[in-house]
Amino acid sequence: MTTSLTAHVSLPTLGIFGGGQLGRMLAQAALPLGIRCAFLENAESSPAAVLGPVFGSGQLAEFQQAVTVLTLEFENTPLTEVDQALTTQLMHPPRIALATAQNRLLEKGLFDRLSIPTPAYRAIQTHRDLQMAVQELGLPLVVKTATGGYDGKGQWVIREASAIPELWQQMQPAVPLIAEAFIAFEREVSIIAVRNQSGEIRCWPLAENHHHQGILSHSIVPAPRSEQLEQQAQAHMSVLMNELQYVGVMTLELFVTANGLLANEMAPRVHNSGHWSIEGAVCSQFENHIRAVADLPLGSTALVQPCVMVNVIGQHPDLAAVLAIPGAHVHFYGKTEREGRKLGHITLMPVPEMTQSQQISALKAILPNKLSLPD
Amino acid sequence: MTTSLTAHVSLPTLGIFGGGQLGRMLAQAALPLGIRCAFLENAESSPAAVLGPVFGSGQLAEFQQAVTVLTLEFENTPLTEVDQALTTQLMHPPRIALATAQNRLLEKGLFDRLSIPTPAYRAIQTHRDLQMAVQELGLPLVVKTATGGYDGKGQWVIREASAIPELWQQMQPAVPLIAEAFIAFEREVSIIAVRNQSGEIRCWPLAENHHHQGILSHSIVPAPRSEQLEQQAQAHMSVLMNELQYVGVMTLELFVTANGLLANEMAPRVHNSGHWSIEGAVCSQFENHIRAVADLPLGSTALVQPCVMVNVIGQHPDLAAVLAIPGAHVHFYGKTEREGRKLGHITLMPVPEMTQSQQISALKAILPNKLSLPD
Repeated sequence: MTTSLTAHVSLPTLGIFGGGQLGRMLAQAALPLGIRCAFLENAESSPAAVLGPVFGSGQLAEFQQAVTVLTLEFENTPLTEVDQALTTQLMHPPRIALATAQNRLLEKGLFDRLSIPTPAYRAIQTHRDLQMAVQELGLPLVVKTATGGYDGKGQWVIREASAIPELWQQMQPAVPLIAEAFIAFEREVSIIAVRNQSGEIRCWPLAENHHHQGILSHSIVPAPRSEQLEQQAQAHMSVLMNELQYVGVMTLELFVTANGLLANEMAPRVHNSGHWSIEGAVCSQFENHIRAVADLPLGSTALVQPCVMVNVIGQHPDLAAVLAIPGAHVHFYGKTEREGRKLGHITLMPVPEMTQSQQISALKAILPNKLSLPD
Repeated sequence: MTTSLTAHVSLPTLGIFGGGQLGRMLAQAALPLGIRCAFLENAESSPAAVLGPVFGSGQLAEFQQAVTVLTLEFENTPLTEVDQALTTQLMHPPRIALATAQNRLLEKGLFDRLSIPTPAYRAIQTHRDLQMAVQELGLPLVVKTATGGYDGKGQWVIREASAIPELWQQMQPAVPLIAEAFIAFEREVSIIAVRNQSGEIRCWPLAENHHHQGILSHSIVPAPRSEQLEQQAQAHMSVLMNELQYVGVMTLELFVTANGLLANEMAPRVHNSGHWSIEGAVCSQFENHIRAVADLPLGSTALVQPCVMVNVIGQHPDLAAVLAIPGAHVHFYGKTEREGRKLGHITLMPVPEMTQSQQISALKAILPNKLSLPD
């Protein structure tokens, strides 16, 4: 029984920074492979807790002892904690990917260095910097905090020069900031890819993402009319992942413009716009991330069937009503309700009884928060 | 937030008799729906333990307090324990289905009463009964214990009259027995169906099952050349489920003969020959069982893609070698190795790179126990 025992003894225990829904779904994918996960998470009751031990920041040493390799699901994981853990364990993806994603100025710098087109930007430290940026980049102007901020938080849009003084009062405490030229994009897409430890890269089909108040509302896969875009996006992704010597799943959000794709931001982790892959791809983003981190062969990222993923934000719908929709797959995260909070997602897979737009209409009719779902 | 809270408060906690791999996969399907499971299981470390609390037979009262509705994954659950739990909780499927499946004579009687064709049989209490059975049913003759026995255990085949006295010595301690006419069947298939609390029945496609030493080796779905068989099988299944007022997933194993289908045995639970449905059906046997027991709308049992499910018996294969096969989905149960023990299963889904027979050959090459996989 050497083969099998070897195979099993060699399986790592993954230490995941963060214990939210992404950690939960990573652990769900790891379980059938015989791979266990532990989580570093300070929240009282976290979605991942049902699938493995949770350690608080104060228990970092115990966390290190409990795991054999590190990965992450929470992009805002403090680098100080990562650096402590890195004294005893390897992490996939690499620290540089996390550090870059945590600072929009570093991220933009990386895009520039790799010739990945991205909206023009300026670093903002002072009122004067802001006035210069308005002159050079024009209005409207998007201003974001360089670090922190997510789901639209920590962002401002300057539409008139007269509003600058007042907005500056709000922004100033949050410096360093980054000002980005306002892009009149046609739509937003994201590409998700996985890279293994020998450098092989596999990309899932592009997702077309629709937002509502800065939060992802729903993703349509494959993104319509995306054949040429797909090639561009894959090229950007492989340059990025190879430059970072990336291992695991990474996401790149892109604006579709008349002049092609512009990189908006990267996420060094599995991504909300890839949740469709649990049912819609041969191998999901969660399982492939586990495979890459555990140094196992990658699974196919091919599409099984086209689908749409809809987020559940703030309030849960009636479960029975959702399950009555043919082809609806429910993923609740076990979180309590709060405005703007991601509580779950629903993936609509093709069925003979209904078209996709009929499925979406039926779901919209019963979701408490209808986000930006089409009628 | 009334809707959603109501929806959540109303979710049951399932009490599952048995904590093996079937309980584990039921709990995996329940988790994303926000439904938790607890298990009544005496084994020291059980596959389901990672997903919910496990109670021993001595803690039946605590088990009852911890759950709101009962179901089962272990067919040999003692009726005494079920009856104790039934004093405070409802169970789906009904007790009668379990009691019938635990006694081959009751099971055969039910098939007869419902005019479901089944191999001729005789009840055996004495040596004389056995001699009569040989005369009336001929040789070879299959003799099984009326209760207990699974995966080919507790079965004998009498090929020559001269062997009767010696075999009787082995059988006698196991009376009551049942003698069944030997059926020269072409192949074995199984039909799996789910019935909800309002009597709606949905059937998955027929699986063609191949055994090795009495244990399921692999299932091919959909079963080839099975259009007419499908209708017969579905008719038998709906008669059975309606008669038993069944709620949940049930399985019927059938022999394919020159004269049509003959019922071999029923299982009042999710079944090994339905594991393919996790990846291969819109809604798996596990999720639909949970939905039925929790009184939620049923999911579609339609096939997503044709596939083959291969059991891992006795020894684990090298995980990396299996995952290197395109389209291979691994489900290990977290069990220690023992000869003849079901340790996991592998589902092979269609991929562009390989044909199904190429996938099967590749898997056979690396499985320690090759069972009856074709070359």
